[in-house]
Amino acid sequence: MNFNFENLYLINPTDIDDECYIRAVHAEKILDNAKIFSSFEDSIKEIDFLIATSSIESKKDKKHLRNSIVLEEFCKTINEINGKIGLVFGREDYGLFNEEIALCDIMIKIPTSENYQTLNLSHSVGIVLYSLFIKTFSTKQKRSIGRIEKEKMFEKFNLLLNKINYPLHKKENTKIMVRRLLGRAIPSKWEYHTLMGILSKTLEKLKK
Amino acid sequence: MNFNFENLYLINPTDIDDECYIRAVHAEKILDNAKIFSSFEDSIKEIDFLIATSSIESKKDKKHLRNSIVLEEFCKTINEINGKIGLVFGREDYGLFNEEIALCDIMIKIPTSENYQTLNLSHSVGIVLYSLFIKTFSTKQKRSIGRIEKEKMFEKFNLLLNKINYPLHKKENTKIMVRRLLGRAIPSKWEYHTLMGILSKTLEKLKK
Repeated sequence: MNFNFENLYLINPTDIDDECYIRAVHAEKILDNAKIFSSFEDSIKEIDFLIATSSIESKKDKKHLRNSIVLEEFCKTINEINGKIGLVFGREDYGLFNEEIALCDIMIKIPTSENYQTLNLSHSVGIVLYSLFIKTFSTKQKRSIGRIEKEKMFEKFNLLLNKINYPLHKKENTKIMVRRLLGRAIPSKWEYHTLMGILSKTLEKLKK
Repeated sequence: MNFNFENLYLINPTDIDDECYIRAVHAEKILDNAKIFSSFEDSIKEIDFLIATSSIESKKDKKHLRNSIVLEEFCKTINEINGKIGLVFGREDYGLFNEEIALCDIMIKIPTSENYQTLNLSHSVGIVLYSLFIKTFSTKQKRSIGRIEKEKMFEKFNLLLNKINYPLHKKENTKIMVRRLLGRAIPSKWEYHTLMGILSKTLEKLKK
């Protein structure tokens, strides 16, 4: 629910008891609507594209079954897939069996440290859903100021450099530095106004 | 351990008991080596760059404290930061307090659905560490300054605010804004020295 996924299919689960609802916190709706199946084959009948997840890759390129693509790479192509997509996660202890992976269209792998490759089920699901979510989420940064405001600020900053007799031979470079710093920081309108306020007050005081 | 992180700092934790070790599975080494502190201030003394994580953003741009950048965007710049980086995660129930966030250089946010914004602590940590792990392949070009230099700069900036009789009720918010701006811009040593030069010259001039 944190990442806008709604449909949970469970295959031969344990009882959905109070513990499950406690863990679901505000996502009980997803538990209520979960579809329960007695076999993997039954659960995938209406799914157009199946994605297996596993941390166990084939060592040899030759073994196609567990040839995987990295989660990040897969996310870039998700929009090209038509129809219902199913993300298949295995058991906490054994993951997915070969017969199950064989029924899937693709296998994805979450990159992990060489020192500890196995993620627990819950974190695997969290990371996969997050990765898919942010590919559909626009990272629009609503904060930046426009060109005119920026130029006004640089003008005021220039006045300050003059007022404090800043060494002439360093001036151009320093002005560029400020431009770069603010370019990286991408100030919001409020940050802009606050900075302008500080500059104005400093210039006023220097006039006296 | 799944994502090559080793150092766990805990502040006023509950007892580290069998339950903790069961949950850690093969990562018990990290629990064994965890450093325990009695206050947040103590824990950050040797950290150069602090990253707060929160799901609660400021609604208004004006409140600098909780102005955040999106996890993905932040990950692109992580390699530019020098020194020890601390990722700060709050309590499972209340997250981080404002006083704690104020001490951090930057706040990051994990994008989530509008319908259910709060992630549990464990998944937040998992997603942040995964995101940083997959970005560590890119070339490193470190530029950032350390904690001591940063504090010196903030001190000088504070002096400036005093000198220009900056309104008291705006001061704290403005100080945090500067911290956030520089947190996002990640100044190099040269940029630091230039900024310090400007501040010093301005303060000198104001003294006269």
